[in-house]
Amino acid sequence: MQKPSNPQGTRDFSPRVMRRRNYILSTIQTIFEKYGFEPLETPALENLSLLTGKYGDEGDKLLYKIRSNKEIVNEIGQTEANTIKELLPNRWIPGKSKLGLRYDLTVPFARFVVQHRNDIVFPFRRFQIQPVWRADRPQKGRFREFTQCDADCIGSNSLLHEADLIQIYDEALCNLGLQRAILRINHRKFLEAIVDELKLDFPVARFTTTLDKLDKIGEEGVTKELKALGVDDNTCLSLFRMIESVSLTKEGLSELEARFNQNELAKMAIADLGEIVAYLDGHDAGINLVLDLSLARGLDYYTGSIFEAVVPDSGIGSISGGGRYDDLTGVFGLKDVSGVGISFGVDRIYEILDAEELWPNDLSGNQSVVICHFDDKSRIHANKVARKLRVNNISVIVYPDQKRINKQFDFANKTGAKYAVVIGDDEIESGDLSVKDLKSGSQDTLSLDKAIALFQS
Amino acid sequence: MQKPSNPQGTRDFSPRVMRRRNYILSTIQTIFEKYGFEPLETPALENLSLLTGKYGDEGDKLLYKIRSNKEIVNEIGQTEANTIKELLPNRWIPGKSKLGLRYDLTVPFARFVVQHRNDIVFPFRRFQIQPVWRADRPQKGRFREFTQCDADCIGSNSLLHEADLIQIYDEALCNLGLQRAILRINHRKFLEAIVDELKLDFPVARFTTTLDKLDKIGEEGVTKELKALGVDDNTCLSLFRMIESVSLTKEGLSELEARFNQNELAKMAIADLGEIVAYLDGHDAGINLVLDLSLARGLDYYTGSIFEAVVPDSGIGSISGGGRYDDLTGVFGLKDVSGVGISFGVDRIYEILDAEELWPNDLSGNQSVVICHFDDKSRIHANKVARKLRVNNISVIVYPDQKRINKQFDFANKTGAKYAVVIGDDEIESGDLSVKDLKSGSQDTLSLDKAIALFQS
Repeated sequence: MQKPSNPQGTRDFSPRVMRRRNYILSTIQTIFEKYGFEPLETPALENLSLLTGKYGDEGDKLLYKIRSNKEIVNEIGQTEANTIKELLPNRWIPGKSKLGLRYDLTVPFARFVVQHRNDIVFPFRRFQIQPVWRADRPQKGRFREFTQCDADCIGSNSLLHEADLIQIYDEALCNLGLQRAILRINHRKFLEAIVDELKLDFPVARFTTTLDKLDKIGEEGVTKELKALGVDDNTCLSLFRMIESVSLTKEGLSELEARFNQNELAKMAIADLGEIVAYLDGHDAGINLVLDLSLARGLDYYTGSIFEAVVPDSGIGSISGGGRYDDLTGVFGLKDVSGVGISFGVDRIYEILDAEELWPNDLSGNQSVVICHFDDKSRIHANKVARKLRVNNISVIVYPDQKRINKQFDFANKTGAKYAVVIGDDEIESGDLSVKDLKSGSQDTLSLDKAIALFQS
Repeated sequence: MQKPSNPQGTRDFSPRVMRRRNYILSTIQTIFEKYGFEPLETPALENLSLLTGKYGDEGDKLLYKIRSNKEIVNEIGQTEANTIKELLPNRWIPGKSKLGLRYDLTVPFARFVVQHRNDIVFPFRRFQIQPVWRADRPQKGRFREFTQCDADCIGSNSLLHEADLIQIYDEALCNLGLQRAILRINHRKFLEAIVDELKLDFPVARFTTTLDKLDKIGEEGVTKELKALGVDDNTCLSLFRMIESVSLTKEGLSELEARFNQNELAKMAIADLGEIVAYLDGHDAGINLVLDLSLARGLDYYTGSIFEAVVPDSGIGSISGGGRYDDLTGVFGLKDVSGVGISFGVDRIYEILDAEELWPNDLSGNQSVVICHFDDKSRIHANKVARKLRVNNISVIVYPDQKRINKQFDFANKTGAKYAVVIGDDEIESGDLSVKDLKSGSQDTLSLDKAIALFQS
């Protein structure tokens, strides 16, 4: 019999991995909650008509479509289904697919907002941590089923949201031990201002498609691409001077003011960023906040601020992205709803923490204590002891089988327990516990109360 | 434009519902962890070949099958795909479905155990809380996407696991305020003993199919069905005497011993239950533990103990089921792995808690404080105050827009905040906070430290 396996591009999360993933997610979630974001979940199944056309041609191809046998038979009738089965054996599944799997958390969120607009109190802050599915070619770090971790503020133009999101980035990445992370910040109007200043005669979107590649192909590569579009050498040089990074401070903004020389588009970006800097006054950032005018992240989607977090020298691309979108819900008929949101890449953060061993020490197994015993009588007594420990919120497992004591210690060690307790006739009589510290190997006889205090410490 | 909607049989979980669901799930999870159960997650996508044939003919029909456009085109080639499209427009999706959506948590868990058998430390206790999908006809309380919440102990015959699971049931249902719940317990051998004692000349499975309906059709209905199978009146009367419930105690077991008159099958069941009762010695159950010999729950699956939890007079069927299975992984080629597990029905528990208003008081919104302001200057200062509160783990939102103060109070009230803080010129100057208790309506001016203490209380 062939060993069963999980599908390509999907993963089982073992207890050890689960604890680490939960550490990342709960660290981020705790911060979302401190900023007043509310939990939301939407179904994995969405009507296919809702999903198609929302993620571009490539996205449409990567959508997972769903159907059940029952739906197929209901739709075309049993007789026709049988005929088809005969004509096209094993080859065709009849019927149209009506459902699809969630491709991201943004489109379902937009649907939720439109559907429940009369019940939602705006401005609405929600976070959402759920898996999404993409029928992409699996490769290192790219999965067909992966978790997204989003926070969005919707129904307000206020730049206070941007300031809050920057503070969230800072707090989350510092709490995860990624103080060297850089938050790259840009504004769409800067990108428009660059096209304007350089007098490029092609659309902003075309320009940013090339600019987005700067990280990968470098200045040389970008120059080459722009020259193919008819841009001359000097203009390219001006471009690279123009997009030089500055810090997200009053001083940084003054420098950009001088650099853009009263360009109206740039002035709008600088005004917005100035307001964000004002809100951040007194905020002592642990990560680096950088105004990076080369940052576009696809652009077509974002209409104001653009964010991207990276961890230098990690060998991994961005670990989070986001920005402001002025028309999230327009496609569903609800106009003029502005929002701003960010999304953390849980898998990439996991990879960095794992490679750099940045996990906290207390992510070991659940059961801190394994109780060992010699026979039926001591096993029954062991269960009584377990009950007393659990009342004190200590995680306990009584070794369930009749095995040699060494085998039981072995189990305790392998499952990551901190202590083993041995119950024999002496312990039943005295009520004391024989406690072995599995790390140091030291053994001691303790009263129940002292043992409880030790296990809780 | 049509208002977008979620698919039939699926649900959006709004923040209010999320908090309540999370309350149920975290109550149960905390207890699982105290008994040494480890977290596990498997992908939503499984190879279809792994799922088909595992849930009976009806289950096969309810499986959701998945495919992507890309897979379709890859499989049959673009040209053939185009031809098909022309011949059977809008009617056919070519290709065989290779993936399916998780139908329960048990089969994926069995796969995980077989696939990772060399890395798992047995006996292995895992819990798993994830959605599953069934293409069933949606109706009140039955969804196409719903959460299962399972705990299983695998790789050991020890009845200590049963005792632990009974204690978990007790603790979980009491902690959720469902003290009046009844845990019905049975043993497969009792069902076999009844067929043996009554000398029924049809298989145990046929008998239990009818017996399982006792709750719905009553003794009269069961008698009618049995008589149609050739069972006489007296035998039916004996049956109902035989299955009368007793308590899960030594006394209850003695009564059954007398009732079954040395029947060998019954003796095996009584021995097992006697061991469970011994492990439970000293356990002071909050819910009712009842030996109910009519409980079968399909039977074919369970080989030893059988569990079912119900809440009397709730109008809702069982809220949890489980039992021992002696061959979970045999279908995947790993023989003789015994396990025992239980599964909580989150949606049904939710329904009961909601109908009986058993929610705890502290499940209101995340943001305990909303800071209100009058102008740009006070809004910037408000953000500084917010920062100081958040450092103290207080959840805060600064009202983001420039609106009248009443509008801001309105937002605070509607989002369930406990306090509103108003920042004006006076507060900027003094550093004090003007705090309004949104429940009592009382207003007070407090120093920052006193306000922090109040918000944390």
